[in-house]
Order: sequence, then structure tokens, then C-alpha cells
Amino acid sequence: MPLPQPNFTPPFNIVRCSHAVLAVTDLARSRSFYEGAIGLRTQDEDESGLWLRGVEERNHHSLVLKKADTPECLRLGFKVASEEDLEKAHSHFARQGLPCRWSEEPFQGRTLHASDPEGTALEFCYEFEQAPRLLQKYEHYRGCHPQRLDHFNCFSPNVQGSLDFYNGLGFRLTEYTETDGEDAAIWAAWMHRKGNVHDMAFTNGRGPRLHHIAYWAPTALNIIHLCDVMSTSGWLENMERGPGRHGISNAFFLYVRDPDGHRTELYTSDYQTMDPDHEAIRWSLTDTQRQTLWGMPAPKSWFEEGSPFPGQKVREPALKAQPIVAH
Amino acid sequence: MPLPQPNFTPPFNIVRCSHAVLAVTDLARSRSFYEGAIGLRTQDEDESGLWLRGVEERNHHSLVLKKADTPECLRLGFKVASEEDLEKAHSHFARQGLPCRWSEEPFQGRTLHASDPEGTALEFCYEFEQAPRLLQKYEHYRGCHPQRLDHFNCFSPNVQGSLDFYNGLGFRLTEYTETDGEDAAIWAAWMHRKGNVHDMAFTNGRGPRLHHIAYWAPTALNIIHLCDVMSTSGWLENMERGPGRHGISNAFFLYVRDPDGHRTELYTSDYQTMDPDHEAIRWSLTDTQRQTLWGMPAPKSWFEEGSPFPGQKVREPALKAQPIVAH
Amino acid sequence: MPLPQPNFTPPFNIVRCSHAVLAVTDLARSRSFYEGAIGLRTQDEDESGLWLRGVEERNHHSLVLKKADTPECLRLGFKVASEEDLEKAHSHFARQGLPCRWSEEPFQGRTLHASDPEGTALEFCYEFEQAPRLLQKYEHYRGCHPQRLDHFNCFSPNVQGSLDFYNGLGFRLTEYTETDGEDAAIWAAWMHRKGNVHDMAFTNGRGPRLHHIAYWAPTALNIIHLCDVMSTSGWLENMERGPGRHGISNAFFLYVRDPDGHRTELYTSDYQTMDPDHEAIRWSLTDTQRQTLWGMPAPKSWFEEGSPFPGQKVREPALKAQPIVAH
Amino acid sequence: MPLPQPNFTPPFNIVRCSHAVLAVTDLARSRSFYEGAIGLRTQDEDESGLWLRGVEERNHHSLVLKKADTPECLRLGFKVASEEDLEKAHSHFARQGLPCRWSEEPFQGRTLHASDPEGTALEFCYEFEQAPRLLQKYEHYRGCHPQRLDHFNCFSPNVQGSLDFYNGLGFRLTEYTETDGEDAAIWAAWMHRKGNVHDMAFTNGRGPRLHHIAYWAPTALNIIHLCDVMSTSGWLENMERGPGRHGISNAFFLYVRDPDGHRTELYTSDYQTMDPDHEAIRWSLTDTQRQTLWGMPAPKSWFEEGSPFPGQKVREPALKAQPIVAH
Repeated sequence: MPLPQPNFTPPFNIVRCSHAVLAVTDLARSRSFYEGAIGLRTQDEDESGLWLRGVEERNHHSLVLKKADTPECLRLGFKVASEEDLEKAHSHFARQGLPCRWSEEPFQGRTLHASDPEGTALEFCYEFEQAPRLLQKYEHYRGCHPQRLDHFNCFSPNVQGSLDFYNGLGFRLTEYTETDGEDAAIWAAWMHRKGNVHDMAFTNGRGPRLHHIAYWAPTALNIIHLCDVMSTSGWLENMERGPGRHGISNAFFLYVRDPDGHRTELYTSDYQTMDPDHEAIRWSLTDTQRQTLWGMPAPKSWFEEGSPFPGQKVREPALKAQPIVAH
Repeated sequence: MPLPQPNFTPPFNIVRCSHAVLAVTDLARSRSFYEGAIGLRTQDEDESGLWLRGVEERNHHSLVLKKADTPECLRLGFKVASEEDLEKAHSHFARQGLPCRWSEEPFQGRTLHASDPEGTALEFCYEFEQAPRLLQKYEHYRGCHPQRLDHFNCFSPNVQGSLDFYNGLGFRLTEYTETDGEDAAIWAAWMHRKGNVHDMAFTNGRGPRLHHIAYWAPTALNIIHLCDVMSTSGWLENMERGPGRHGISNAFFLYVRDPDGHRTELYTSDYQTMDPDHEAIRWSLTDTQRQTLWGMPAPKSWFEEGSPFPGQKVREPALKAQPIVAH
Repeated sequence: MPLPQPNFTPPFNIVRCSHAVLAVTDLARSRSFYEGAIGLRTQDEDESGLWLRGVEERNHHSLVLKKADTPECLRLGFKVASEEDLEKAHSHFARQGLPCRWSEEPFQGRTLHASDPEGTALEFCYEFEQAPRLLQKYEHYRGCHPQRLDHFNCFSPNVQGSLDFYNGLGFRLTEYTETDGEDAAIWAAWMHRKGNVHDMAFTNGRGPRLHHIAYWAPTALNIIHLCDVMSTSGWLENMERGPGRHGISNAFFLYVRDPDGHRTELYTSDYQTMDPDHEAIRWSLTDTQRQTLWGMPAPKSWFEEGSPFPGQKVREPALKAQPIVAH
Repeated sequence: MPLPQPNFTPPFNIVRCSHAVLAVTDLARSRSFYEGAIGLRTQDEDESGLWLRGVEERNHHSLVLKKADTPECLRLGFKVASEEDLEKAHSHFARQGLPCRWSEEPFQGRTLHASDPEGTALEFCYEFEQAPRLLQKYEHYRGCHPQRLDHFNCFSPNVQGSLDFYNGLGFRLTEYTETDGEDAAIWAAWMHRKGNVHDMAFTNGRGPRLHHIAYWAPTALNIIHLCDVMSTSGWLENMERGPGRHGISNAFFLYVRDPDGHRTELYTSDYQTMDPDHEAIRWSLTDTQRQTLWGMPAPKSWFEEGSPFPGQKVREPALKAQPIVAH
């Protein structure tokens, strides 16, 4: 199947992935994880939730944790370029018969809730309350010095469909995994708006579910320090995979699980992709170096577990080829 | 003077700064510097010149060195989003009565040569020959592992004028230095197209002249290794300033001079700026931490020396306040 | 069983582990591995062998590769404090009825060949030809910038016996693994002469065999770069374990296998131990963090494979408890 | 003048430099500096003083700050190998007519106070209260992660005399600076007991005075982070020199001044020197790369200022050649 043509005239202008909203069951424990271990800054809190950000982020939050009985991924948030783009977004989703409605969210301007065709819960917003600059408040740096939200990665039961839908929104493909042979099919896709490897990625699997959110850290040494901190301060069981180097994206990674099982990647390196003629990189599903350049396997949980979206039934993927799990 | 309003509907679409063209007097010596010490890859060479790139760059070159009798900065190059944008660029410069003409350049598609109102020599191009991916050819990494061209910095005799002109081209201001008091004036301006701190910056001074080009390196340790290499392999005199941390941009930096005196910055860190409502940071000209967060002075040469553009008379700046040189 | 009392009046003065002598089957291929990938410097070569060293080492070699039909560990070498110590060493081994004889070795002064009671092949020497200082020849740094040989690690079929024997030579215990319960037994022991965690370590297992030699690298980033280089330049299959952090020794590690299967650890961090009252650290055999602080398992090969010594029958260990292999 | 012959049979056995005792005028402010900025751990405190240590140190303290009206260096402390060595030390100093007397110090065993011939105040001790292991309590790491005291550096009005005296105590020379010409004289000397570049160094100058104490940090990135922290949290004026690379010792350094002006170096890298035949490296006083491999000058204060010892008159050095201060 041919790759979709890049779409340079999207129906509305998405700037970047900007924030995730996760339902968690114990705010204090979650704060201990994201602030105490990872090093995010708690910008606000009340009985209903926590609002956190990385050290370079000037929008009020990039991670919202809401108190709930059941852990879920409530919303994946994207910043659009203007209020007018919100209107256009509303029209776009409505025109396609997809769920969309206006919402009020703390510390944000007008917010649009919507879902993609697979049921991934999305949120669009232009305006965020601005917070004081932290980047040069080095004495407050903690954990792995997480600087900014980098991307989301989701399981999709229909990766080709997800790729087409987000391509329609102006996301551009940077790397993809494909099955081999005559009826080659897209297994996974990495797509960006902001000019690096991805804002959003999809992997074939039981979905829709969030696989992970990712924060960018300055260097591999910061991530190694996080390994040392987590493994010796009660978070050993929350370390799931890494550190290692992805073949795809070339990023140095660590995957950790929060107290409710939501997965976060700490991520550094990657590369720039804003050239309109930047060519996507193909990886064969049989090439294990796409997952880990250095050859180490990911654990079973990493392939199988994810966070569901509210009220969305998790469906089996149509595509049945299996990724090769190293052993 | 009020800052210019961001311009989201520029006359043509510049993607990013993409390549510099420098006149050098000894190609072999320059290659020894840029490839042997810094670690750029020589992609092509002939008797007339050298074409080099960083390890993540897929366009054929980001630095062109042309054999000449006199060292000069021949052109600062920008990649536009399409061939159509080239036509629009030509119209834009012509309409304003600024120099512009089509040119043929090796390894590039159709190329437009132009000058800004101060006489800075520019070059616009959409298409570059594509080169094999090097990012994961780690055994070929050399020097400080320079990954990509990051930005240009120029002396302007009229920074407010330069700011206004590039704002008109859709460059957005991220940080600026201003004199204090009632008749506050812009002393220096950092402006971007690609979503980080800058593609182009201007500092008040005798100009037009190139102050430096900058390559992005992965971590401060790569840049420290370059200090060790240069200082013990015959390039000690070419180390001009650093390593250090800029207040402005927050980047870790090292400035080096090539055999003809052209200045290159090795640069890491900075931050993302693609939000349309990203607010520019003001620095007072009297705040020495804007230059070096850690307080060390830059040498006199760093304030005074630069590369002229061909046939452009270097003029004294209108603004006469002096930056504070630490001592 | 009580730990042996530190012995501050050894029969002769061993300064440190100084060199390993390995039999390899293809000198060119081995050179490509140790010099081309790891980054050791080839100091000398002839048809019979290669002599290599790290960038800070001023003795002529710390690794000798000898052409042979069968890969083996020929000798583990230690530098003594004087020629007189060599005489004392000869007497000590002879007195105990252990193999010992004088030998001539290239680039070394008078050399004593000996074996410990388990059959580990040893070599003692005071004088080495001195080589030009490389530490500040940074332009020649390669691979992971290996600075110096750090230690040896061997399988012993009788760890308690090995501990006692080397304690008798003045090696001091820094860390050890013990089985739990009433008849607690030493499973593994780390012992030093030079003031860091170890010059020599023993692990319970089929032996005598060399488990690995280790080179010290400056930072974890150098070792991560080696992972990137090896995995993308034909050495992926030679990467066996890591990178990771040992609980024991606190070192950041990577284990690689040379073309003949000899194992090398790249190692950084550890700590100082020269205080005479420095207390050894006990780890329980059931504590998996002793192996990897971050919880990742070592592969089966790492527990089972090693390099035999010439003419020494490999024996089953007396101690039968099994280390816990993570899964 | 010929270098002194290494002395392998010293009158008593000094293991290493172990602790400094500084008089400070404001304990709270000093704690804010050493703990809050640098990252040392406060192990004990009372109204009279503070006891601090690095993260790998198992002796109770390596830095003692005593409340006083005048800042001075009260003592430079060395750990000896046994209680018997203390007796031998007493005899050695007494025999030479040098000041020496027994003292009681908190958290230490029997302690000998003494002075070297130039008046440097010394302290010898074998036993220290042992403190809980912190090395793998990574969540408590702060500042630049200082691991251990590395060395002392003093001004001596008679460097040749200091070199001879400490050589007599078994310190071994690793590097030295010498004036050129027929009547070449030693300008500065680096001497060790523990097997790295130095435990004690002397530089020609007005003395006796302490030039600095030094703590070892794991990597240059930790030291760069300290620069960022200090420069943005009120300690900018306390940053004196660096970061940079010394030619001598090859160490990456940063020099900071505490609230009373006592100087601390943060230090990483160097190399091993325990071989008895390790040859000392000579640097010419005219070679500015010995100070900073990368060529940047040290400020005047770094050459001129130091901490006096109690009751010791500071004398002009006999040797009058001047170091070349870069400009």
C-alpha cells in the first residue's frame, strides 16, 4: 500500500502535542512518582488533580493527573495555532461525524474534546495560562531534568487507518515499520507536527489504548541517573525497559510505569524533520534493531500493556503478524 | 520602541537556515579544520570547493567552502518550503527594490541570490541533492559529533531595521537585548523559523558582517572533547571563547575560528519555541549574564571581528551604546 | 565462615593487575575488535601477536594477544613493586609447591609464570618498556576512550579457597556475595591491591576460567557511544550484556565478547578502598540488585561461558546453590 | 636541581589526605554553600561546627567547618594506616623539632596535630567514626554529586623544601613545574600517597597558605550543572575560575570560593600513579597549557589569594620568577 502523500494544507493548524490527561487512583503517590522521582514540577494541585510541567515549558502544564477510581488515559492534548483553528477543528470533526464538543478546563482557554475514528480521546486548545520561566532556575532541577513533553504513542487496531486520519490533519510521517512481502502492511507509524521525529505514533495492537507519553531529557546521563534513583528509592518495580537506543528515531530511552501502570518514556536525542521533502524511513518488522539498536529485547509487558480510553472498547487489531520479541 | 507583531502570513515560506557559503584561501587547511577537528563530513570536493554536512543532515551540504583569494562570507542559505516559494521570494525582494537574481549552484535545485536591506548576502533554495543517512553510522562519528547546522549570527549596523525586515519574512523573535531607559533601543535580536531559539540573529555592530555560524552537538561532553582535541593537535590558537553557558538561549557553547578567521559556534541545549504565543525574553544590555550565565568574559576579538560579505562596505552602527566587556 | 583477616604484610608486594595475555585465532580480526571498536591502541605487533594499551597507560601494554589455534586465557599479569618482589614471589609459590618458573616476555623485564591452587595461570613482572604518553593526545582517542586495565574476574570451583589464597597475597576484600542461612558460604569475592573495588574477583562456577577482563572508561557516555558503534558496524552479536549499573562495585558496565569469545567489560565509576579499615560489603545471593541495580537480567551466556586456562581441566564447583537468573 | 629519589620506606604510613578543617564566620551560610550548592552531605552539626562528607565516603567527615571570628585553614588532615603509625608520626615530627601534640577531635580517634617546616598546619588520624553508606542512596545526591575529597593544594614560600619534606614522608612526585635555564628551580609540585595525581601539591607563593581543597565529581556534566546552579541561585560571585581542563593532572576543573573565601576545586578525571616506577612529568613555567590546556587565563585572584594557617606569618617566596598570567 502506498504511503499517504504529505498534506501541507491541513483543515486546521496543530502546533504540537501539548499535554496528557491521565486518571490516577492516588494523587499523593502519583505526585511522588512524577515529581519526586521523574522530576516534573507541580504547578498546581487541588483535591481533584495535579498539573505538572517540564523545566522549559511555559504553558501551565503538560501533564494533568485527575483523581479517579480507575486508571485511564482521559485525553491526549494538542495545541493549535489560534482560536480560529479551534473552530476549524470543530467543523472538521463534526463534518466527519466524529465526536466533538466544547469543554471548560482549568488553566486552559476554550477547549475542544474530540475522538479520532478508532476512539482515541483527544483535546485541542490554543491558550494556556503561562507560568514563570524555570529553565534557568537550575537549583530546582530534579530527577532526570525533564524539559518538555515530546510525544504520545498509542496502540491502534487499525494503524493504516490511523496513519491516514492523522495525515489528513497534517501530521507527517517520519519512520514506519512494515511487514515484508507482496501484501506489505504498515505495522507502526511515527508522525510529527513540530519538526522532530514525532508528536504522535501508532503501533498495531489491541486498541485504542495509550502506549506511552514521553518527556525529553537533556542527556543520556540524566536518564541513567534516574535509573539509579528509581532503583534505590522504592521504584525498582516501575522500571520496565531500558535504558537503550531505539533504531527508530535514534533516541536514547527509558520506559517507566507510574503507580497506576501508565507508561512514560524518558527520551533524548532524535533529529529534525521540518523539511517538507524529508523522506520517511522504512523498517522491516523482522529487523529487531528497529526496536533496540543494541539488540536487547523489550519485556512482554511493553508489547502488551497500555492505558485504555474512557468508554472505549479495546478491539483486536486486524493485522495479525506478530512482532518478534527478542528472548 | 514596541516589538514588531509576529507575522504568521509571510510573503513566502522559509523552513530554516540550511547552509552557509564561505570563501576560504586554502581548501586543504580548511578541510583539516572542519572535518579533522570539528568532525563534519566531507560530502563532495573538487578544485573549487568543499561541501560538508553534519551527521543527521540528509540534504547534501550545510557548509560550502569555496576557494578564493580573500576570506569572506559569500552567502547565508535558507531552505524554503517549495519551488513556488522561490518565485514568491523573488517577487518579494524585487518589489522592495532589493538585489535578487537566479543562480545555478552544484547539488542544489534552482537557487535565488538576494540581499537584505543592510547588504547581508542571502541564498534561497528548496531542493538539495539527498545524501545517504549517516545518523546511525556511528563508527564514522568524529570530533564533537556535529549533527546539524543550527543558526547564523550577524553584525548589523541597524538591528531594529534587520529585526523589522526578518519579521516581515515571518521570522519570530525569541530573545532580545535592549538598552535601558526612556529611549530603549534593541541591541540584539534572536529570531527563528524552525521552532528553536534561532535561525538568524543580529547584534549591533560594524556591519553587515557574519559573526558566526553554529552547529548543534549532542551534549556538552562532545564539545569538551573538542576542546581537548583542538588544544592538543595544533588548533589552540583557533579556540576563541568558551566553553560556557549563554544566558540568552541557555545554550552551552564553544566558539572557534577557522584558518581564515570565520567563526563557528558549537552549540547544545536551547529549547522549543514553536508556540505562536511564545513570548520573547528581554535582556538588559547591562546584564552580563545574558552573554555568559557563569560570568566569564568574552575576549575582545569576539565582540569586534567578523566576516564581511562580498562587495559590501562595512558601516558603523547607528546605535552607540557599548556592550559591557567583562575584564 | 568468618571472613579472612586483612593481611597487611604480604609475602611480596603486588602493585596492581597490569596485563592479560589471551590466545586468539585471527590477529587481524582481534585487532579490528580491540582497536577498531573498543579503541585500545596497538603499541606493537608482529606475526605472533599484538600488544595493546589504554590511553593513560605508560607501561608498554596491558593486553597481549597471541596467535594460536585455540582461544584460551594464557596468563593474567600483575605488576609487582620491585625486582626483589619477584624473587620473593618465586619463593612464595615454590614454598607452597605451586607451579612457578622464570620466563622471557617481549617488552617486559624478568617475568615469573605461576599458577594459583585452582590452576589460574598468573604472570608477575616489575619492569615494562615505557611508551610515550597518550593521555593528552586527544585526537587519537577512539571507541569508548578506554583509559586503563581495571581488573580481572574469574570463575573458581572453590571461591573460599581462592579468597584465602589471594588474601594471603595481600589482596583485600571489598565486596562479596554470600548464600543465606546457617551454613552461609561465599559465592563471589571482589579483592583489590590498588585501592579501588578490585584487581581480581572470583565467582563460584566451573573453573578455573577467566570470566572477563575490564577496562576503565571515563564516563557512561563513552560506553553508550561504544554500544552505538558496535551495534551499527558489524559487532552487534558481540554485545552480551548491558549497559547497566552493578549493585556490586556501583560501576556502570557493558560486557562484550571478542571474536574468539573472550569477554571484556567496559567499566566506569566505582569508588576508593585504600583505607586499611575499609569494611567489605556483603550481598545476599538472593538479592538480584547486586548484579544489576536496575533489575535487568544478565543472559545465560554471561553466567556460563568463560575462557579456560592452558592445560587446566575445568572442574565443577563444590558449591551448588544457583544464582538467580532474572527472567 | 635533581628531583628527590622516591622514598618507599617512609617513617610512618600515610594512606591519603582525608579531611580539611576550616574556620568560617557564619555556619548557616557555609552550610548553604557546601551542602546547598556543592552537594556535600552534612553528617553532624552543633553550635561549634559542621561535619560534611562526599557520597562515597564512609569515614564520618572529610570537611570540618568550625565557627570562628576569622576565616583560616585550621588543619589539613591525613589518614594513617594504623594507630602505630600515629606514634611513629609523633616521633618523626618530634625528632625534627617540629611542632606536634596529641589532640582530641570529635568523631575521630586519637589525633596528632603537627606542622611542616613551612608552618602548614597538619593533622594525622587513623580512626574515624564510620557513617552509613550513601553511594547507592541516589535520591539524596545533590549539587555536583561530590564523591570524595581528592587533594589539597598549598602556597609554599619554599617549594623545594616542601617537596623534600613530603618526599621524606613517602609522598611521590607525579608532575612538577620548573623554571627554565641553567639554574632551573621547582616552581610547583604535585605529590601523592593514594595512587592518583595528588594528595598534596605546593605552588611557589606567599605562604604558608592553603590554595584549595578539591572534591572529586563523577563527570564534567556534574560540574557544568554546578556552574548552572551557582550562577542562577546567588553564588555567581563565588565562581572564580573554570570550568576548564588542566594540562597538569589532565583534570577537568572548576574553582569556587566559599562565603569566607576558602577555595574549593571540583575535579574529575586525572589518572593512576601507583606504579613505583611511574615517572614524573615536567612542565616548563613558560608553558601556559600546563594551567589550562585550552588556553584560557586564570584570574588574578586565583594566583594571589589563599587561606592562612593560624598564627603563621605569611612569608614572601624565595623564588621570584613570575608565572605567566594569560591576558
